Amino acid sequence: MTRGGMAMITRVDVSKSSCAATSFGGLVFLAGHAAEATKGRSVRRQTEEVLTRIDRTLATLGLSKAAILGAQIYIARDDMWAEMNEAWDAWVPTGCPAARACVEAGLADGVFVEISVTAAQLGAE
Amino acid sequence: MTRGGMAMITRVDVSKSSCAATSFGGLVFLAGHAAEATKGRSVRRQTEEVLTRIDRTLATLGLSKAAILGAQIYIARDDMWAEMNEAWDAWVPTGCPAARACVEAGLADGVFVEISVTAAQLGAE
Amino acid sequence: MTRGGMAMITRVDVSKSSCAATSFGGLVFLAGHAAEATKGRSVRRQTEEVLTRIDRTLATLGLSKAAILGAQIYIARDDMWAEMNEAWDAWVPTGCPAARACVEAGLADGVFVEISVTAAQLGAE
Repeated sequence: MTRGGMAMITRVDVSKSSCAATSFGGLVFLAGHAAEATKGRSVRRQTEEVLTRIDRTLATLGLSKAAILGAQIYIARDDMWAEMNEAWDAWVPTGCPAARACVEAGLADGVFVEISVTAAQLGAE
Repeated sequence: MTRGGMAMITRVDVSKSSCAATSFGGLVFLAGHAAEATKGRSVRRQTEEVLTRIDRTLATLGLSKAAILGAQIYIARDDMWAEMNEAWDAWVPTGCPAARACVEAGLADGVFVEISVTAAQLGAE
Repeated sequence: MTRGGMAMITRVDVSKSSCAATSFGGLVFLAGHAAEATKGRSVRRQTEEVLTRIDRTLATLGLSKAAILGAQIYIARDDMWAEMNEAWDAWVPTGCPAARACVEAGLADGVFVEISVTAAQLGAE
């Protein structure tokens, strides 16, 4: 089977508890990305930072945001939705949005948004 | 590699921010589906609508609910679980349930359930 | 296409509403696993039980925890994070962590942690 050549799991930015992304069998799974530099600032700024960090993680695998298949967005309060969404819409590639889900969930203090995505390992064929 | 023939990402019902589903490499990722017509009504009615809408999205890719591999269910309050589950059980194909996770999360006003699923692109081989 | 040989979906521990895991196309999707025996006890004990049950589900598919690609962790309260994380770190295979996301969400009474994972069906090639 052609997967034979992909039997290894690629891991990006490995720490003790997690890694930024795994790649296997043509698919890429990113960890939940949350704000670091902009922690405590507006949800718009945090969303911008998170999306930039997602771009960076994808780039280590040779991918761009157009490869994203699915996105799970967690926001800390429902009234942050509009601002998060404006940052998202400014970032999402025209005609190539992911299948997205967005719910309100509890996040760490000062963290207003967390996003995890699944992407296609395009070009791996 | 045979994935070569599947290097393109298929997207269903594309809007600015999201799309209803993406298909790539034999897998299908659906966006979070929530009630529209039954918003504000009972969680049972909303669940029925959501599952019908999931059926419809899958159908655009030639799939039925038996192709669903995983399901993530968000409900607005834990006491809605039983009613959601009755609607789910009436819908799930006998012997072919998805690997399911269900938690309580904050949803938009009047929205009591949101479901996203991952499915197999059966028949794509 | 070599997926031809994998057109069937494998399901583990099927019940009416859910199953413990599905396997298709080289990927494995586990249901949300929550504590049963340790329900109502500390989040540390519950996390240990959940991780043991995940090990067991993976084992039915011939897999170990090193095959896990992504993990979604839900905890009932943010102040449970440290204890959950200690149990997680004691369990995660060195150098092989999953891409992880962790948020606070409402769980059933006495349930403090729920974890669902996606894994690679290693050895299926």
